[in-house]
Amino acid sequence: MSRIVALDALDVRFPTSRDGIGSDAMNRDPDYSAAYVTLRTDDPSGLAGHALVFTIGRGNEVQTAALRALSPLVVGCEVSSVLDDPGAFARSLADDSQLRWLGPEKGVMHMAVGAVVNATWDMAARRVEMPMWQYIASLSPERIVAAIDFRYISDALTPAEALALLRLAEPGRRARTEALLQRGYPAYTTSPGWLGYDDETMARLARQAVADGFRTIKLKVGACIEDDLRRLRRVREAVGDDVAIAVDANQRWDAAQAIGWINRLAPFKPAWVEEPTSPDDILGHTAIRLAVAPTPISTGEHTHNRVMFKQFLQAHAVSLLQIDAARVGGVNEILAILLLAAKFGVRVFPHAGGVGLCEMVQHLAMADFIAISGAMEDRAIEYVDHLHEHFVDPVRIRNGRYLAPTRPGFSTRMHEAPLREYAYPEGGFWRGEGVASASARRSS
Amino acid sequence: MSRIVALDALDVRFPTSRDGIGSDAMNRDPDYSAAYVTLRTDDPSGLAGHALVFTIGRGNEVQTAALRALSPLVVGCEVSSVLDDPGAFARSLADDSQLRWLGPEKGVMHMAVGAVVNATWDMAARRVEMPMWQYIASLSPERIVAAIDFRYISDALTPAEALALLRLAEPGRRARTEALLQRGYPAYTTSPGWLGYDDETMARLARQAVADGFRTIKLKVGACIEDDLRRLRRVREAVGDDVAIAVDANQRWDAAQAIGWINRLAPFKPAWVEEPTSPDDILGHTAIRLAVAPTPISTGEHTHNRVMFKQFLQAHAVSLLQIDAARVGGVNEILAILLLAAKFGVRVFPHAGGVGLCEMVQHLAMADFIAISGAMEDRAIEYVDHLHEHFVDPVRIRNGRYLAPTRPGFSTRMHEAPLREYAYPEGGFWRGEGVASASARRSS
Repeated sequence: MSRIVALDALDVRFPTSRDGIGSDAMNRDPDYSAAYVTLRTDDPSGLAGHALVFTIGRGNEVQTAALRALSPLVVGCEVSSVLDDPGAFARSLADDSQLRWLGPEKGVMHMAVGAVVNATWDMAARRVEMPMWQYIASLSPERIVAAIDFRYISDALTPAEALALLRLAEPGRRARTEALLQRGYPAYTTSPGWLGYDDETMARLARQAVADGFRTIKLKVGACIEDDLRRLRRVREAVGDDVAIAVDANQRWDAAQAIGWINRLAPFKPAWVEEPTSPDDILGHTAIRLAVAPTPISTGEHTHNRVMFKQFLQAHAVSLLQIDAARVGGVNEILAILLLAAKFGVRVFPHAGGVGLCEMVQHLAMADFIAISGAMEDRAIEYVDHLHEHFVDPVRIRNGRYLAPTRPGFSTRMHEAPLREYAYPEGGFWRGEGVASASARRSS
Repeated sequence: MSRIVALDALDVRFPTSRDGIGSDAMNRDPDYSAAYVTLRTDDPSGLAGHALVFTIGRGNEVQTAALRALSPLVVGCEVSSVLDDPGAFARSLADDSQLRWLGPEKGVMHMAVGAVVNATWDMAARRVEMPMWQYIASLSPERIVAAIDFRYISDALTPAEALALLRLAEPGRRARTEALLQRGYPAYTTSPGWLGYDDETMARLARQAVADGFRTIKLKVGACIEDDLRRLRRVREAVGDDVAIAVDANQRWDAAQAIGWINRLAPFKPAWVEEPTSPDDILGHTAIRLAVAPTPISTGEHTHNRVMFKQFLQAHAVSLLQIDAARVGGVNEILAILLLAAKFGVRVFPHAGGVGLCEMVQHLAMADFIAISGAMEDRAIEYVDHLHEHFVDPVRIRNGRYLAPTRPGFSTRMHEAPLREYAYPEGGFWRGEGVASASARRSS
């Protein structure tokens, strides 16, 4: 009978702000970071689980502290009871009566719950030596339903409805697995579109993306309308009319401002306009969507739990949804959201980039294709070409598509060397920058 | 030119779970806690500002870490520029481009921003030697509007509308100040109603509350309908028909379950039913409210920012609103919420209890009465009789009403002795419990 014997949490930060990577209308200078968690067991096989919360720099120590706060709830748990009843385990973390006050089910504490839950899913897939997408897609409809907390969403999706959706998709699982292994899953890329890039760099990277097989490119917008129009024109010239161009405002606008701005961008026929306003403003998104139709509106990377996703769907507030692998309460809650989206007939275009998000979210989209929505050619996973080298099982992109991972687990495990080098503030890189001593001074 | 020279953050926990204090359908055993922040200056007068985030125990160290994460944004700031332009200061914290990722504007990080902002308001009121309610009510409509971040709420309340509301209330400020000083502000009490109390204790405390002058009592419900009906009957017998009884489900139900449960409680004519479901479920509250009308529905103590409050009002989801002094982004955001509530004609019944919440929220309700809504006799501030002795300027209750504080500041400063005794895990009380050593073992 193996037990979880340790929860190790590490603050890891990469100095991406130096190259303008990730810059947009709200995030000028992100240092892509991970609050990285490892669950260790006393299983003779060396079984362990890995996961991370993605952050963009400052405050990653708070996120790491939140992971550590979950340690007393996790260490000592029996491995098989955790892995065999993921619904009960996730709920034991999200429902801790004292920690719950810090959310509930939102922000730093909920992201910590999500990462610990994800680490147990990584462990579960490793235990049966399957990549995560395949592991999820191997579970019976009943087991998937049992993993989900239907509390606060049962008015939009009952367990019986979820079961019916999963059973409907069950007969096609094998054929879709074949299709996935042969063709991979469509990707789109944001790499050309950061606000920090000049027009030349942007156009060159956009042409390169098309040459690499991408059919959709995303640009950051929202800081200055004249710049946005010029950049859209420039990229449209560079890639031609057959490539879709999405834009992302990263919450920059109020509702009225969004409507005016989006209507000016409309002649460029954006594939969608992402995060036009506050991720909390469900009714604001509905108003924007109605006013700019038929331009598609989307949000989701900052949507903090299934209750919010439910309402975005109920209020017809979005044309399509982003999900994120490290924002909500882990795989369990992602399954709830994917089922809600399937019921409402809304396509999911997962958010990725940062550090580790591509690695994780590919599994969720592929599992959705096989076991839930049954569709992939009408959607795509975001792809950004940064920091993959630090992962033991990095994403593989061929001709604008994610290849299905074949190694066991959630692709969340990082190499030891970058963990040591970029640990903050004590790692070699940051010591070299003099950050460790500055940080020590600050906290004294 | 004085500057802020230190941000001290302290984890303080009180062992309230031992007496069943604060127990409800979701929070079985809270240990009322504070992530307590002090901003120190080099002003020769010794000017400082105090504030706290209320939590209920575990995870208070995460909240304390979040306060510390703000230190680099605060230490070194010029006191007068912070106090004279509170809008710019609050936005500089909430908009830090990296920390924002951890919310945005929700959870642990947003509560930390709120406490630091509140500490600067405490300092501002101390600087002019006014209690906070009076300080807010002394500001011109223009200065109040300038303190507010209208981003994401301008579709429901514009700066011009806010200014008009404030100007409308301006001529009556002096007369209402007189009325407040003479009569105090109505209170209601939750002290009899904790789920952990047996029926005898509950009935005795309810009778005592009425004898003490309270006209409204609140009971916790939601764990078991038969218990709820018995307890309501028992309290109604104890206090008679002239005393209002509110009930609080602390998010226990799904929408459909709430409707059935509330309709069974309806014969007891609850003054309101608080937190029937998830605090994120705006549309769920609308559905519940419509289905149980005319029973009033409310929420707010877990509503995480002005964008959510805006939507609860736009969607007619609540009959009345709770605000909390330590959940959102500080006094600035509370002013936005109070103005939104005034515009929509919805009464505010502030949430209090815990540790320090009564001390803080009384100032906000009193300022609302004088400078915003102009009303108090149709509303009340929650009162719970615990832990006031630890504050330098504790609340004063007479005949079921809060007396207006007269000492300078936000009443947020705690005595040094309890800060030492209940500091976690190193304080004398917790060392005596062996917690310090257990905690040290756990983190090693």
